[in-house]
Parts: sequence; C-alpha cells; structure tokens
Amino acid sequence: MRRFGQVIKLQGGVTEAYKRYHSAIWPEVAKTIRDCGLRNYSIYLKDGFLFAYFEYVGSDFEADMARMGEDPKTQEWWAIMKPMQDPLPSRSAGEWWADMEEVFHQD
Amino acid sequence: MRRFGQVIKLQGGVTEAYKRYHSAIWPEVAKTIRDCGLRNYSIYLKDGFLFAYFEYVGSDFEADMARMGEDPKTQEWWAIMKPMQDPLPSRSAGEWWADMEEVFHQD
Repeated sequence: MRRFGQVIKLQGGVTEAYKRYHSAIWPEVAKTIRDCGLRNYSIYLKDGFLFAYFEYVGSDFEADMARMGEDPKTQEWWAIMKPMQDPLPSRSAGEWWADMEEVFHQD
Repeated sequence: MRRFGQVIKLQGGVTEAYKRYHSAIWPEVAKTIRDCGLRNYSIYLKDGFLFAYFEYVGSDFEADMARMGEDPKTQEWWAIMKPMQDPLPSRSAGEWWADMEEVFHQD
C-alpha cells in the first residue's frame, strides 16, 4: 500500500460549490476511484487550501491513474473541478494536485 | 473512528531539522501517541506547509489529548517542535495545529 498527501488551492468564491459537489460525488466517479485502487480518500479544507490523503492498494499506480484519466465521466467531473482549483506554482511537471513529501508516519 | 486533517506552517530555515526529528521520533512520544488512540498518523510537507492526517480509535478524544499533553516526554518533544512551527492565525481558540474541515471522504 502507498500513501499520498496532495495539496491544491481553491479559487476565490467557489468554496460552497466545491463542497456541495463533494458532498455527493457522482456514483460513476466514486466507482472509478475505487476501481483504480484508491482507498481511505479524504479531502480537507482550510483557508482556501485543499489537502487530500489517500491510500493506493493496486500494483501499478501510473497505469491506474492513466486509466482514471481516460474515464469519460471522470473527465466530465474534472472539467467542472479544475476551473475551481488553483494549482501550486511549485508543483512538479505533469502534476495538478501537488504531491507532498511524507515526513512522518506511524501506523 | 474519527479522522482528522490538520495544518500548520514551518518557520523558515528549520525544514531539515524538523524532518530529521520526525524521521526518528522518540520511542516514548511514539508510545504516547499510540496509547492515546491515534493511528495511521502521517505528516506531509510542501512549500513550508505541514499537513497531518490521523485516525482516532478511542472513545474520548478530548480526555486522551489532555492525557497526551500531560506526558513529560511529549512536553519535552513539543518544546522543541513548537518553536519550529508557525501556527495559522485563522486557527480556532485553543488550537496549535489548525483543524481542517473534511469536505470529502470515500472508504
């Protein structure tokens, strides 16, 4: 299992819309998340920062993420979410949500 | 089980020291974390922001956190960590790390 922490900002004025979408995500999007091996997936909000934590239980993360990106309903979801998000300039090439560095873990 | 997401900033220039401490936290501190019901505890770093995710499996979070705060070795640890941290002005009264709002969760 691999753990991930990721961060992105929200654009101004979209907080309520973002929360509303995420309080009832589309069933097809939820199913794709699960089918692509993501578990225990949480998103937290504070001061316009979104922090995501999830665990990946599959065996080929890059392939599963590519598969997720090819899902039409997920693409439709992202087309709504991405304009609400403001990615960190310091993110790595190819990232939208920026991966964070794990500095501590205790089971 | 209750999940928590928390955020705080690091002071400038302390990143390597903070990482070094957390790559080998004191056994007594690790034991107190566990004894106080915290599990699956991760801390992530990006751009000077620290994000913590953990799960609480006890039955009285406030009492367990009070107990943690009374542990001498934990107090000693915090006396080193706190000067390295820069808490968010927007944190709630009584907070050091600021609790974040969960806007999404999927098992």
